[in-house]
Amino acid sequence: MAGTTLEISIRTPEREILVDITSRVEAAIGQAHATFTGVATVFVPHTTAGVTINEGADPTVVRDIVDHLRRLVPRESGFRHGEGNSDAHIKASLMGSSVAVPVEGGRLRLGTWQSIYLAEFDGPRDRRVWIVPITAGSEDQRASGGRP
Amino acid sequence: MAGTTLEISIRTPEREILVDITSRVEAAIGQAHATFTGVATVFVPHTTAGVTINEGADPTVVRDIVDHLRRLVPRESGFRHGEGNSDAHIKASLMGSSVAVPVEGGRLRLGTWQSIYLAEFDGPRDRRVWIVPITAGSEDQRASGGRP
Amino acid sequence: MAGTTLEISIRTPEREILVDITSRVEAAIGQAHATFTGVATVFVPHTTAGVTINEGADPTVVRDIVDHLRRLVPRESGFRHGEGNSDAHIKASLMGSSVAVPVEGGRLRLGTWQSIYLAEFDGPRDRRVWIVPITAGSEDQRASGGRP
Repeated sequence: MAGTTLEISIRTPEREILVDITSRVEAAIGQAHATFTGVATVFVPHTTAGVTINEGADPTVVRDIVDHLRRLVPRESGFRHGEGNSDAHIKASLMGSSVAVPVEGGRLRLGTWQSIYLAEFDGPRDRRVWIVPITAGSEDQRASGGRP
Repeated sequence: MAGTTLEISIRTPEREILVDITSRVEAAIGQAHATFTGVATVFVPHTTAGVTINEGADPTVVRDIVDHLRRLVPRESGFRHGEGNSDAHIKASLMGSSVAVPVEGGRLRLGTWQSIYLAEFDGPRDRRVWIVPITAGSEDQRASGGRP
Repeated sequence: MAGTTLEISIRTPEREILVDITSRVEAAIGQAHATFTGVATVFVPHTTAGVTINEGADPTVVRDIVDHLRRLVPRESGFRHGEGNSDAHIKASLMGSSVAVPVEGGRLRLGTWQSIYLAEFDGPRDRRVWIVPITAGSEDQRASGGRP
């Protein structure tokens, strides 16, 4: 992996659970890129897990999210895919495979109530999360590219 | 906030509504970064509102989106969270907390019918939107990093 | 379009289908930006199609995704929008209009089972996909900006 990209590993404890990874993401960025300001792309390289940002203060919120997604996409819905985890694939696409997180001076700049969650839908498993830092900038790409 | 990051404020008029913020986002970028070419990360620092891109021409489209999300995630569904707004948290994660918008020369480069919407699910409220500009570029990060 | 942004065209063969565009995206990046390392923003400039990352090995997975989205958002649900494709607009927002894909040395860095899908919900149509490369970097934007 390129020197700037970071990886963290998470053991998810249940089949369906949102695991708060905010402090893990912040620690990884703070250690490797303490002065970085821009956007961190937090990317999940799996197809039965996703990533989302939601409330971190009251743990019942993410349990409500998991429960309601289970109602919207029940495990047994006459799916074609033989592995019995099509529901997990569908929920992963509903949540998405990445979030963009503003960073300032090596610290996450989230809203007051926001946390970053690995959204596990087919655990328990060992999951990885990649973090790619992208420096903020508003350069005129065309102008600078045109200079000799 | 870092000098490159912009913030706009929006007062949402209803509990559930998609508010078109395209011109606000474009004006903020055009004023601060008139020659910027790249991607704007449009980020919502809230947990009961999200952001999405959809049709801007016919206003019935976004009303259909709001109505159908209400059917998929009714406000009363036996949720655990005591504040009575778990539906809003779930819809926020379904829409997502950020969108990436191509920008060229300080102007948004959206598809013909696309607009950017703040997706309010627990208003009316005062909401903020952060815009982080990221310059386009295809530099070989490893090569440049490897030079002394 | 700026020199760094790429465009690919896709003819979708059905009303609702997930079309694997991974090799098209990789070929476009590899040809134009063979040494690029960072994140590719893959953006769909349409409002009745989106883009998502999911399993590429077993084609039944994406058929299950399409089928289940049709159950969640049936075409006839008493919508206001007169064109009869509100379901497609809603599904597009559920999937999202862009994905962020890590790239290293001009090659996509996806998880083992991940593919990128154009999510068509109102085809068959000619669709475009824009790819904006963003170089990875963890520079201190504020420090560099502060230097004369």
